[in-house]
Formats: sequence, C-alpha cells, structure tokens
Amino acid sequence: MPRTAFLGPEGTFTEQAVRVLVDPDQHELVPVDTIQAVVDAVRTGEADSGCLPVENSVEGAVPATMDALAVGDPVVAVAELVLPVRFTVVVRPGTRPDQIRTVASHPHALAQVRSWLEANLPGVTAVAVGSTAGAARAVLDGDFDAAVTAPIVSTRYPLHELATNVGDNADAVTRFLLISKPGLSPAPTGADRTSLVAVTANRTGALADLLVELALREINLTRLEARPTKDRFGDYRFFLDVEGHIAEHRIGDALAALHRRCTEVRFLGSYPQADARSTAVMPPTTDQDFSSAIEWVAAIRRGERA
Amino acid sequence: MPRTAFLGPEGTFTEQAVRVLVDPDQHELVPVDTIQAVVDAVRTGEADSGCLPVENSVEGAVPATMDALAVGDPVVAVAELVLPVRFTVVVRPGTRPDQIRTVASHPHALAQVRSWLEANLPGVTAVAVGSTAGAARAVLDGDFDAAVTAPIVSTRYPLHELATNVGDNADAVTRFLLISKPGLSPAPTGADRTSLVAVTANRTGALADLLVELALREINLTRLEARPTKDRFGDYRFFLDVEGHIAEHRIGDALAALHRRCTEVRFLGSYPQADARSTAVMPPTTDQDFSSAIEWVAAIRRGERA
Amino acid sequence: MPRTAFLGPEGTFTEQAVRVLVDPDQHELVPVDTIQAVVDAVRTGEADSGCLPVENSVEGAVPATMDALAVGDPVVAVAELVLPVRFTVVVRPGTRPDQIRTVASHPHALAQVRSWLEANLPGVTAVAVGSTAGAARAVLDGDFDAAVTAPIVSTRYPLHELATNVGDNADAVTRFLLISKPGLSPAPTGADRTSLVAVTANRTGALADLLVELALREINLTRLEARPTKDRFGDYRFFLDVEGHIAEHRIGDALAALHRRCTEVRFLGSYPQADARSTAVMPPTTDQDFSSAIEWVAAIRRGERA
Amino acid sequence: MPRTAFLGPEGTFTEQAVRVLVDPDQHELVPVDTIQAVVDAVRTGEADSGCLPVENSVEGAVPATMDALAVGDPVVAVAELVLPVRFTVVVRPGTRPDQIRTVASHPHALAQVRSWLEANLPGVTAVAVGSTAGAARAVLDGDFDAAVTAPIVSTRYPLHELATNVGDNADAVTRFLLISKPGLSPAPTGADRTSLVAVTANRTGALADLLVELALREINLTRLEARPTKDRFGDYRFFLDVEGHIAEHRIGDALAALHRRCTEVRFLGSYPQADARSTAVMPPTTDQDFSSAIEWVAAIRRGERA
Repeated sequence: MPRTAFLGPEGTFTEQAVRVLVDPDQHELVPVDTIQAVVDAVRTGEADSGCLPVENSVEGAVPATMDALAVGDPVVAVAELVLPVRFTVVVRPGTRPDQIRTVASHPHALAQVRSWLEANLPGVTAVAVGSTAGAARAVLDGDFDAAVTAPIVSTRYPLHELATNVGDNADAVTRFLLISKPGLSPAPTGADRTSLVAVTANRTGALADLLVELALREINLTRLEARPTKDRFGDYRFFLDVEGHIAEHRIGDALAALHRRCTEVRFLGSYPQADARSTAVMPPTTDQDFSSAIEWVAAIRRGERA
Repeated sequence: MPRTAFLGPEGTFTEQAVRVLVDPDQHELVPVDTIQAVVDAVRTGEADSGCLPVENSVEGAVPATMDALAVGDPVVAVAELVLPVRFTVVVRPGTRPDQIRTVASHPHALAQVRSWLEANLPGVTAVAVGSTAGAARAVLDGDFDAAVTAPIVSTRYPLHELATNVGDNADAVTRFLLISKPGLSPAPTGADRTSLVAVTANRTGALADLLVELALREINLTRLEARPTKDRFGDYRFFLDVEGHIAEHRIGDALAALHRRCTEVRFLGSYPQADARSTAVMPPTTDQDFSSAIEWVAAIRRGERA
Repeated sequence: MPRTAFLGPEGTFTEQAVRVLVDPDQHELVPVDTIQAVVDAVRTGEADSGCLPVENSVEGAVPATMDALAVGDPVVAVAELVLPVRFTVVVRPGTRPDQIRTVASHPHALAQVRSWLEANLPGVTAVAVGSTAGAARAVLDGDFDAAVTAPIVSTRYPLHELATNVGDNADAVTRFLLISKPGLSPAPTGADRTSLVAVTANRTGALADLLVELALREINLTRLEARPTKDRFGDYRFFLDVEGHIAEHRIGDALAALHRRCTEVRFLGSYPQADARSTAVMPPTTDQDFSSAIEWVAAIRRGERA
Repeated sequence: MPRTAFLGPEGTFTEQAVRVLVDPDQHELVPVDTIQAVVDAVRTGEADSGCLPVENSVEGAVPATMDALAVGDPVVAVAELVLPVRFTVVVRPGTRPDQIRTVASHPHALAQVRSWLEANLPGVTAVAVGSTAGAARAVLDGDFDAAVTAPIVSTRYPLHELATNVGDNADAVTRFLLISKPGLSPAPTGADRTSLVAVTANRTGALADLLVELALREINLTRLEARPTKDRFGDYRFFLDVEGHIAEHRIGDALAALHRRCTEVRFLGSYPQADARSTAVMPPTTDQDFSSAIEWVAAIRRGERA
C-alpha cells in the first residue's frame, strides 16, 4: 500500500487535508514531526507522497514549506487542496464552560479565535502549544481545560465538542499540497496550476522582465512569494504560482524563457487547481496558435515557405 | 525626552538595534510586548518612534511587522539598521560545559545555532521559549542551564559568556526599522530606500505593470514580499522596497503611477539605506531629466514652444 | 485678412482641403509651389497658416511634409482633414469619348484610375504631369484630350466633366494638416490627436520603450512613420500620432517621458481628430487619476500624509 | 545562365548594385521597367533573382518596393548592398561648362546635387526626367546639355565626365536587396539581417507588444517602416529589419511570437548584412541558452526531471 507522509501529529488540519488528497483506505498515512521530514520522506522513498501546508489566508505563507521545497533533491506537487479552517473547542466530557480556566492551542489557532474566546470564555488563560492536536491531548491529560482544534480531533479522542466553527474569520482557509518525486505530471484538466521557484539575475528590472514574460503570454500569476536565499542578505528566491499546465505550449514557452533568464529555476509541479475553475485561454496564446507559429518558423527554415 | 518603543523584552537583538538607531542617552527606550504594540504606541503618540525587526537573512520576513504597518493609521520608516546576528551562549557563573543538560532560546535562535550545539554541547536538550532575553532570565532563575542570546544580554544580567558568535551562518543579519508618525521624510542622502505597500488590480499582468513602471524609471527593486490581504484567499498585499527617495523626481513619478494603478497604495517612508551605498542615477532618469521634461510640456501647454 | 498658404496650384485636392480647413471668405488663400514653401511661409510669417497633405490611404506618407515639419523652426498642426479622393475626368466641351487619345494627370492620380481607364478609355495614352490642375490647364491649352483631376477643377475652368468618381479605390482618402506657428493649442474636444517627432537613443529596445511608455498610459498610437535623419544611414526620425491632447495629464506625462528618453523630440500639435470619434479614457489614466496621484505624492513630500 | 532582373534602364545605380550583388559574368542581367516588374519576374520564374532599391539615406524608403514585396506570392531577400550614391555630371564630348544651359536627371538626383549646381553651373535649367540613365541618353540625343547620373553611365555611353562625386551629401547611400523565390536561406554568417512584414491586431499597445517581444530577446530592430494596407485608412503594414538570422533560436522564437500576435506576418528573408558587422549575442539569448531551456521543459514533460 503506498505511503503518504504528512505533517503530524494526527488530529490536525493537515491530517484532514491528507484524507481528502489521497484515499485513506488505499494509503498508509504516516505522521512525521516536521515539514522538512515530510519532504525528506518523499525524497528518500520512505513515502510515496507527502502532504504539506503551503499558505493560510490569514497567516500567509508557510516558510518551512517553501524552504524545504526550494533546496535539495527536487519534488513536485501533484495535487492541491484548499481546506476551510473551522476551529472546534473541545473539553473533557462533563466540563462546563464556567469551569474552564485555561485553553490551549497552536498560536495561530489562538490568534484566529480571539474574538470568540473574549465573548464566550472571558478571562480564560490562552496557552500556546506546538499543535492543535497536542493541545487536545494535553486536555485529555488534564493539563488544560479546553483546546482549540481541527474538527477532526473529536473523531480521534474521547473529547466533547463545546463549540464548532469558532474562528473569527469564517472564510479562513489553508492551502495544502500533495508532493511526490518528479515524474509525469497529472494530466491537464483545463483548470491547472503550475508552481515554480526562481532566482533572478541581480540587475534592475530582472523581476519585471520575468513577469512580463508571463504577461505577454497572458499567463495569470496567482501567487508570488519571496524567501531569502540565505546566501547573501538581500537575495531572494521567488515562488510563483501560475494558471496553466506544463503540457500547454504557453506555459512551456514561458518556462523556457524563465530558464534562460534566471540564475536558478525549479519546476514545482503542474496539478489541478483546487477550485476547478477553468482557465480561459484565448488567442494569441492557445496551443493552436503556438503550434501554427512553430510550424511556420520550421517551414521557413526548411526553405518551404515565407 | 522623546520615547522610543521597541519589541521587548530588554536584552534582545531589538534592544541592540534601537540603541544604534536612536541615541540611548537622549531617548527613553520603552520595551513593549508585541510588534503590534510598538506600532500602536507610535500611532497613539505614547511613543515618538518605534523599533521593529523587518526581515532576517535566514528566517525571512517578519509577518507581524508587515501586517502591523499595512493596516491602521499610517506610520513611516525614518531609518533602518542591518544588525549582524551574533549569538552568545550564557550560563550562570561557575557552570561548566559538561554540566549543561538544557539550553533555552527563541526557536529561530535555536535553529541558527544547531551545528554549534551538536559539536560543542552534544546531547543537550534544546527548549524553545518566547525570546532570547526570556531564556537568559530563565537561566538566572535556574530553570535551564544555558541560553542562546543576543550579545547585549551579558551586559544586563550576571551571566557568564560561555561562547560568542556561535551562529551556524556567520553572515546572518536582521534588518530593523525605526518608525514614526508621517511627517517630513529624512533628507535625501543619495543612498536612500523607499518602502511601499500596494494592492494591485485583479487582472493578468497587473503586477508586471507595476514592476515595469519601476523598471522604466531605472528604479531598483530591492525587496518584494507578499502578505494575504485577509479579505479573500488569493489576494495579496505587496511590500516593495526600492532604491531612491520620495524627494527624487523618478521616485515621485513612479509612486504617482503606482497610485493610479493600485487599488491601495501606502507610503512607508524614505530613509537612508543602512549600507550607505549610493544609488547611481543616470540619464534619462536624473532629476534634471525630469525637470527639463516637465518644463518642456508646461511650455508647450502655455503655447510658448513646440 | 489672415493668409493661408497651400500647396498649389489652384484646382487641386489641396485647395479643396484648405477650403474646408479655413473659411475661404475670411482667409486669403495663397497657392505656393512646394510643401517646403508652405512651411516656410508659416515660419516667416508670410502666411498665418498653411495646408499640407500628410498621407494618402493608397500612396502612403508624404515624405516632403515630414521632412519639412521635422527640421527648422517649429510649426504645429492645429487642424486635420481627411478628404475623400474622388477623381473626375475632364475634357474640353464637345469632346466625345471616342476622340480621346491622351489623358494627363499627376502620376499618383493615373495610378489610381488605371482600371477605369482600361475599361472606359481603352488604348488612350496616359501622360504624367506635375499636378492634376496642371493637367486640366494643359487640356484647356489643347495639349491633351482629357485630364484626371480633383472635382474642384470643373468649378475653376471651362471644362466638361466626362465622368466623376472614377477612382479604382472608392475609399481612397488623403489626410491634410493645417499648420501654424506654435501657440496655444486648440482647446481639447475629447476627440483629439497629438503629433510628435522623436529620435530614439541608439540601443536595442529604445523604440520598444517609447511605445511601452504610451501603452502603459493606454495611449493609442494611430500612426508611426519613419524618415531617415540624413545624418547617418540607418538612423531614423519617427513620426507618431496618438489619440489625446497635450492638455490631458496622460498625454503630457507620456510626452515628458519621451522627452527624457529621446535624443530629439518635437511637438507637432494637438488638434481635433477629423473623425470626431471620442477617445475613451478609463481608469487608471483619467485626468482625475493623475491629479489624485500627483496630489498624493505632493502631500507625502510636504509631510502631510503617507 | 541564371537571369537576374533589375530596375532598369541600364546605366543606373541599380545596375551598379546588381553587378556587385551577382557575378555579372555568370548571370544574365535583365533590365525591366518597374519595381513591380522585377518582383513579378522572380515570381513567375522568368528571372531567378531580382535587384531592387529599398531605401536611400536621403530620400527614405522606396514605397513601390515595399508594396511589391508585401502582397502577392512570397519572395525573399537573399543579399543586400549599401551603395554610396556618387553623382557624376556627364556632357557630350567637347561641351564646355559655359555652354551648359540645361541639366537633366531623376528628380531625386537633382535634389541631391542642388548645391553643386548652384555653385558650379549657376543659372542652368534643371529638368526632371524618369531616370538618370534616361537623362544621359537624352544628352546623347542632344535634348539637354548635361545629365546628373550614376558613375556607371560613362562606361556605357560616349559621354564625357565633367565632374564626379558632386552630391551635396557625401555620405548618401542607397540600400539594395537581391530577391529570389523562397528557399533555404543563405547560411548564417554571424552578421545577418532578417526582414519581416507584419500587420498588428487593432488595439492599443499592439505594436508595443511586438517590439517588446523583440527587445526581451535582445533583438536589435534596425528599421521600422509603415505602409498603408490600402484596406482601410489608418491601417498600416509594418516592415521590420532586425539583426539576426532565422536559423538562430532567438530569431525563430521571436518570429513565432509575432506569428501568434499579428493578423498577418510575412518572412522577407535572412541574409548577410552589408556591413558584415557581427551581432553580439549574449546570455540569456544565445542558441545554447535556448537549447538548454527547451530541453529542460521537454525533460519535465517527459517526467524525467524538475
């Protein structure tokens, strides 16, 4: 049975995500401690795939994911999931709200339920711990009275759901990737995303030129994040997500242009967009437009036409 | 005496930074708990200025700083500092290396001294705490045997420096800003930086157009970071640092173009670059080039020439 | 009474044009021999304005007009006219078609009525002369049997119209300009054109940069013609027509950018478009967008906002 | 023996050019009456090649050449020549300067020797005729006293050279092309030119986009001329000359982009530049850069790498 590593422990949002991204009946799900460990498990072959958070609509990018993907042996994304972040408050069975003195969770989770806590559990002490699932276990152990967790936690532990969907931002989501070793990309669906890492030449306008290469091919840039290269302060590695699939001419053509222009470029995968919203490709950048143009140049070079 | 808030507690890298950015004999230095609190102190007038970390060469951008600067009443940067991150290991006087079982610090600091710890204190347990200064105090209190801290800590606490400059990356630096309420910018020095926040229109090529506006004016973009707007997943706010000063024509002209193009744009200050390396401004983007061009158009409009 | 010079002789398309461009009852119309003479008459003040052909939909640009406008004291266009080129065949009264052995006209006119001549006057000899009006006079003098002329000629000479509207291309037009010394431009109408001459820097991409400056401001380039500078083979002077008026921010801003970038730039006037088709100006390039942006930068410079 | 058509009559600058462009001992040189006839002779196969003037450093582009090349069956340039325009004044043997009352030539030639005529033959009447060689023959016939001609004329007719190199502009040159039916282009020399005709889409910025496609590939545009399409007033066909050869990746790639973007695009040949000045091709646009980039994309598509 194929193995899929995910950022553990069990009972977190990442486990919820991996259970959507792969069929849990057909995969062995393996929690590991760190994002780097997920990527390494895929690299070494210990796992066939891995599930990682990439960005959150409130907290932003997950730096550890970007750093792990950008250096070391290549891995590629083969699927993405955008998971609503719905927080649940769990307590030991029998705990009444007025008995709650402490509430534990991951700091990001605590930050995102602040208003609910003030309104519903005023005066409680919020305690930051390493994961939402760890908070749940600590409540089981009696260390804290309540935990803010992913919904999945109540299916795993004998804890009572005091309240659900308590996030201050009802639209909060986290985006996850399923990664694997490089291989054939998932087939194009018409609603695909391609992820890249690029380091530009060090001159005025270099990043502008990259984005113009995309814009001239009508390629929509859906995300641009920077991370330090760590080689020299002020040098950055850019993470680009664009709409389209490497199998498309316009994407392949743009990637070739970036390959020429960048001191470093890495393909991070072409995979179906989570929202399945088709990308409209119009002249002059349809595959047909590219094919005709390439054949025209080839025919001229063969001396067959002008 | 003017008051300068800084991200506390005392004894951290931020305190080291604020002591360079303002004259500590002429300013009351006020440690506050969070980055948001530093910005709020400046906004309310409780503090005249504030000192904040912006980015680190290893850890990258500081999201809390970006979020605090981007929304709420405007504040602007008036100075920057790039501080080498040199870690010190402190112990209670008399502690021998072989007696060290635990070492505490901020997680980023622990991550940046991992190699040194493995080589010099193999087998010790690393414990993450909220700040490097807090780790020092916990050592004083006897909670841990050693702490990884900023160099300044040994001038504040009766602790012994077991080792200095123990970071794995000798070139690690953190960049800090000194912020204040909007007002006249510091005078141009010829080696200035201007910081901006911008939200682009939601269409293919919108970000490319912004960068082209800069590139056409030969403006060097030294940093581009994204943060979620938190309004809608997939919408980002971009933080741009460019070389040059708002007093220069080419910068003012570019900012005006960005103002027209962006659904939101915020000026975050023009201030001397920490490295004091002059920006070469060449034709056709010198102030003289702009002045002549503007006067030419004005003369045509007055009907005086063609 | 103001004097208007025009490219003579009388009885040509240019006279037809000048009679539309100025009120013939309020102006003294002065035919001169060459395009250069029209421009010189305006430069010296001998004439208050001058009428010149600029381009024809079949023959293309009129090089002499471009060269005359590009060098020497500046003159500017204040109006344009697009005149349908409808050719008339005139003969002496009483001449029957079967008596016609020779037909005279300007070479361009002969080229544009070739099909009609072959179909209607097969076998006649076409003779090229210096102007359509000259051909008419030569018919009067008995030198030729017929002339191909502008319609106006039959109102001037005792000649009979054998046929009208005989051009092979029913849509043929010639565009004329009315020029004068530099002064206040005609007031903007919302459907204006601005003409320029520019010599770019001699480097790869210089012309692309000029056009990008226009495109970024959503300025429509309606015409781009090149003429040798005559200084060095391979150096060109470009004639640009764009939609918009120098009084508009977007046009003034673009012209200032061109002034900075070009080794030479000359304003050739802002004047109402002949077709009176309004130019749609949309955000982010409306005058309001520019005004707000400029005021924003000015307020920042004054220290009043961010 | 292969036949080369040229714009006649014999004894003109075009004959001088064709004698350099092809080996006159190995080719039958066929003078024809018009530029269109030269192109048609190549199209029908009556001639294997044809020689045409394209542009003159003083008079500018030759419209008839552009129009003939742009429509109809394709022909391509296979060589170019830049010929110094050195005018000679010829008279019948025995004619003394003070006996000269009339001087004949092509109007362009007369325009280019005006200063010399005023200084050396003041008071003579200049008469425009159809070609410089025709003027020479008319002098032979006794119609005029002198002719301004190409130097070659004195090797053809029993005329005396009164003066040589009498042009007002000593640097005047005319550029000629040798055309043939489409076939394999001449091999790249490292100093090549490629000629194109393009009609852009009808929207703001369309021409800018074309030029940006060239500029992004560091392709130097050496000439850009417009001609009316004759379909609709205000629509133009652009003639582009760029440095480089269709066999180069950067040129082929750019042409493919233009093919996609243009409503019409025609290849007019890749051929050695007359000045043989090598084109420097630097990263990121060398053939090696393109090959690597294309192979990288192909390998990703095959699933072999990232």
